[in-house]
Amino acid sequence: MPESANIVALLSGPDQRGLVAKVSSWIYEQGGNIIHADQHRDQEEGVFFQRVEWSPSENGSVEEQAKAFEAFGDSLGMKTNVAISGQKPNVAIFVSKIDHCFHDLILRWKAGEYPCEIKLVVSNHATLQNSSEQYGIRFFHIPISKEKKPDAEAEQLALLKKEGIDLVIMARYMQILSSIFLDTFGKPVINIHHSFLPAFAGARPYHQAHHRGVKLIGATAHYATADLDQGPIIHQDVARISHRNSVSELTRKGRDLEKMTLARAVGWHLENRILVYENKTVVFD
Amino acid sequence: MPESANIVALLSGPDQRGLVAKVSSWIYEQGGNIIHADQHRDQEEGVFFQRVEWSPSENGSVEEQAKAFEAFGDSLGMKTNVAISGQKPNVAIFVSKIDHCFHDLILRWKAGEYPCEIKLVVSNHATLQNSSEQYGIRFFHIPISKEKKPDAEAEQLALLKKEGIDLVIMARYMQILSSIFLDTFGKPVINIHHSFLPAFAGARPYHQAHHRGVKLIGATAHYATADLDQGPIIHQDVARISHRNSVSELTRKGRDLEKMTLARAVGWHLENRILVYENKTVVFD
Amino acid sequence: MPESANIVALLSGPDQRGLVAKVSSWIYEQGGNIIHADQHRDQEEGVFFQRVEWSPSENGSVEEQAKAFEAFGDSLGMKTNVAISGQKPNVAIFVSKIDHCFHDLILRWKAGEYPCEIKLVVSNHATLQNSSEQYGIRFFHIPISKEKKPDAEAEQLALLKKEGIDLVIMARYMQILSSIFLDTFGKPVINIHHSFLPAFAGARPYHQAHHRGVKLIGATAHYATADLDQGPIIHQDVARISHRNSVSELTRKGRDLEKMTLARAVGWHLENRILVYENKTVVFD
Amino acid sequence: MPESANIVALLSGPDQRGLVAKVSSWIYEQGGNIIHADQHRDQEEGVFFQRVEWSPSENGSVEEQAKAFEAFGDSLGMKTNVAISGQKPNVAIFVSKIDHCFHDLILRWKAGEYPCEIKLVVSNHATLQNSSEQYGIRFFHIPISKEKKPDAEAEQLALLKKEGIDLVIMARYMQILSSIFLDTFGKPVINIHHSFLPAFAGARPYHQAHHRGVKLIGATAHYATADLDQGPIIHQDVARISHRNSVSELTRKGRDLEKMTLARAVGWHLENRILVYENKTVVFD
Repeated sequence: MPESANIVALLSGPDQRGLVAKVSSWIYEQGGNIIHADQHRDQEEGVFFQRVEWSPSENGSVEEQAKAFEAFGDSLGMKTNVAISGQKPNVAIFVSKIDHCFHDLILRWKAGEYPCEIKLVVSNHATLQNSSEQYGIRFFHIPISKEKKPDAEAEQLALLKKEGIDLVIMARYMQILSSIFLDTFGKPVINIHHSFLPAFAGARPYHQAHHRGVKLIGATAHYATADLDQGPIIHQDVARISHRNSVSELTRKGRDLEKMTLARAVGWHLENRILVYENKTVVFD
Repeated sequence: MPESANIVALLSGPDQRGLVAKVSSWIYEQGGNIIHADQHRDQEEGVFFQRVEWSPSENGSVEEQAKAFEAFGDSLGMKTNVAISGQKPNVAIFVSKIDHCFHDLILRWKAGEYPCEIKLVVSNHATLQNSSEQYGIRFFHIPISKEKKPDAEAEQLALLKKEGIDLVIMARYMQILSSIFLDTFGKPVINIHHSFLPAFAGARPYHQAHHRGVKLIGATAHYATADLDQGPIIHQDVARISHRNSVSELTRKGRDLEKMTLARAVGWHLENRILVYENKTVVFD
Repeated sequence: MPESANIVALLSGPDQRGLVAKVSSWIYEQGGNIIHADQHRDQEEGVFFQRVEWSPSENGSVEEQAKAFEAFGDSLGMKTNVAISGQKPNVAIFVSKIDHCFHDLILRWKAGEYPCEIKLVVSNHATLQNSSEQYGIRFFHIPISKEKKPDAEAEQLALLKKEGIDLVIMARYMQILSSIFLDTFGKPVINIHHSFLPAFAGARPYHQAHHRGVKLIGATAHYATADLDQGPIIHQDVARISHRNSVSELTRKGRDLEKMTLARAVGWHLENRILVYENKTVVFD
Repeated sequence: MPESANIVALLSGPDQRGLVAKVSSWIYEQGGNIIHADQHRDQEEGVFFQRVEWSPSENGSVEEQAKAFEAFGDSLGMKTNVAISGQKPNVAIFVSKIDHCFHDLILRWKAGEYPCEIKLVVSNHATLQNSSEQYGIRFFHIPISKEKKPDAEAEQLALLKKEGIDLVIMARYMQILSSIFLDTFGKPVINIHHSFLPAFAGARPYHQAHHRGVKLIGATAHYATADLDQGPIIHQDVARISHRNSVSELTRKGRDLEKMTLARAVGWHLENRILVYENKTVVFD
């Protein structure tokens, strides 16, 4: 956990000799001190990925140094994304009625685990209004009906824009976000699917798992894309089950799995540890 | 691990009140002493499953008491399967060139983990002939070609029959056994598939997993059926991977997973812990 | 999860031939129907343990049948403990300032995971008063000082007695309960210790773990006894750590471990799945 | 897995600004290309650790470039250790009669997992002589008696010296190596202890675990030091057990745990991924 403001940069692009040296030398020459640096080279594709975190020089503002690095990364031909620790992104949680991920995320945030601001909760049901407000988080009830889904999404988008939301977390939202929504929002959306994808995509995965007689159930946190359950996978985990477990017990066991899997994926995202590339993720954990 | 000869019975059939009492009273009245008993009731389907292990009375032979129980189980309308510990089933291992499961199974057997006789190894390649013979196990090289596959299977079936084989273990055999083979053999065949089924069925599962960008790889031990990779699952496990792992590293990590998953499934089978039911298994572990 | 009232009995005592038959026949003859039965025989000590759950006959009250079984168990020379599902035990949660187990237990209870009544929260600090009351649970602030600890414990005991508390959960209470308290209360107390006992008993286990350079941290849920951290272990789990993790990160990772470990131990206790024997537990999970 | 000869350097020493830049720039200027680089900064102690792997320039020999880097690392005030992939260290395996780790290590080596030469097996019993020789590895039977232990160790040391052994693996050797042995050998010795250290150090850890009633058993791979079971921990893992498991079953389950834990520790050591520091390890996995 950084105590003063650090700069975190994520770079990706065509591999070239000397990239590590160039990046670290640039930071050194600017008076920065590297705290962590991790890189990966996809040998098959010839792509280089790096996450580097440094404490900036005391001469000059952090913002200027971050901006200067972004220009430097561009000059290397790398896609470059720079964040400043302490500048907390704004987060919206989308929920339906199921509340375990909702409580878990908010309690972690209140315990100081997440460097973000949870600005608001959006739901198609009023069920969690009281709980939200007890946590001191504004709650927006936007009902969804088949006919009026475009209107509801437009209302959501206006809200996200007005509040400057940087990340949407679908904490068992149980609705599909349209590709229009995703494109218009234009920022990351993290979803939790309650199976070990690609097994049991689609509806009622615990029923599917029970029917097939698998011995493990899973959960998958991924970035939402227009193709449901097909987005880049961030994190997955499983839990052992047996013939003794009915579907309702799978559901109960699955709640812990979903909470933990989503919680970790959100943490990595907020710490700028994830690069997306060809529908996969590189997670610098 | 039973030291003297115990009787192990597996029962399954329509649930009815008093089954536990009837079975345990029968054993008690015959002078037996229950060592373990485990049962399961599928509430949805109304089916009862039981595994019961007991030390038989010293009056009368173990074989007679086992046979008497089988008749008793039938009289209850239950499918009944009785084994006597100490009467070791005969096992054949089918392999190709890949040898990690082959060595693992044989070394466990030699270490005393498996109550069976590994009578022979069958392979479509000569690669593991020397290793088999060093272990003191006969090796049968039966090449497979597309045109002559029926002939090869007929040769395998004749061998299995002649040697009185009770279980075939496909230890990364890399060939599909035809439904004719499976029906004619008529006894259990255990296969190891190197994915977390139903994800990545079919060929080259580690390539599929790498391409999809999953964060866990899996292995599945199952009874072979005519539909490849669709049989009743006995055991599954997973291992964590990351973007750093190439396909060849998935393959290396997967070897440990395959060994352990197959090894445990074989152990449960040999200890008569598995009941198959509607393409699922009940494992009394 | 039982839907109508079932009876759950836990028996333990000297092994004798025919126990399974006697118990199941008694239930059958009384018109009951066994739902689950699990037993264990400690071969070294010659002790028999059983958990049996049945739906009682519709003739006669559940309470009478439960009482009759208790007498029957006694007549077999077995220590017998009978519970009726639906009769929910009263629970008190003891906390200090650390709140992750506190929230986790209460949210699980509110989600229907725990067949109990959480009647009250006791704390030596006022920190969690608001949270308790938002959950609708009474909060009792009983400060502890070295000199007045006996008075505080007397106050706690009076409260537990008045409220008919059947189980105390120390959800990171950070205080030692005296042997006088434990003896006077006379009912189970479950504690969570944040290490893999017996490693790192005592204070500051994450500091101890970091200092020793272990690669896994642990958590242990156990029944509290006068010898701190020496009571019968109910459940343990571990999480992988690395050189990268500072003590504060071990603490953060440990929170999830503590929550999950305590939550499962409490669930097993409330479902009458635990028998204590010679400072160990038999858990029929 | 490196295909052509790479250089792997491990550095550790007092932290200073610009170390990453200096190291990567040196490699870049010499015409090398960094394949992997990983670093760690111990914030409390102010110590910097790095593992960097690069493909050397085609101008000049690999050996010269490795040597030049070593001098460069020294000039930075860092303890520097350089290895060339393809130059395989010589390994001796010390065993007693228990053979599961012995077979596992050798089969992994034969499968190409370990970049080393297993030159010889040393044992205080003749039990594994045949197996060693079937694997094509020379076997040295050096019996140990209390009185003649110094003589036996002298014989072992002479053998290790003569054969140019770089690493000793105690694969359940069941003997304590004296501090004289360890000092005289002067190179790493990896041991596997069959418990989750620091719990259950010393003799018969599975008996200790069974007696205490723990719910997980463990295994710990560590560098051997004069204080038995106190050396720097490389890797640890655990397996779940229950009241059903007797000591002999713990022993059986533990075998898999020991194999896997030792195997991974040896792999990391042979890939130069481990730095030892204040009785702890930094493992760049």
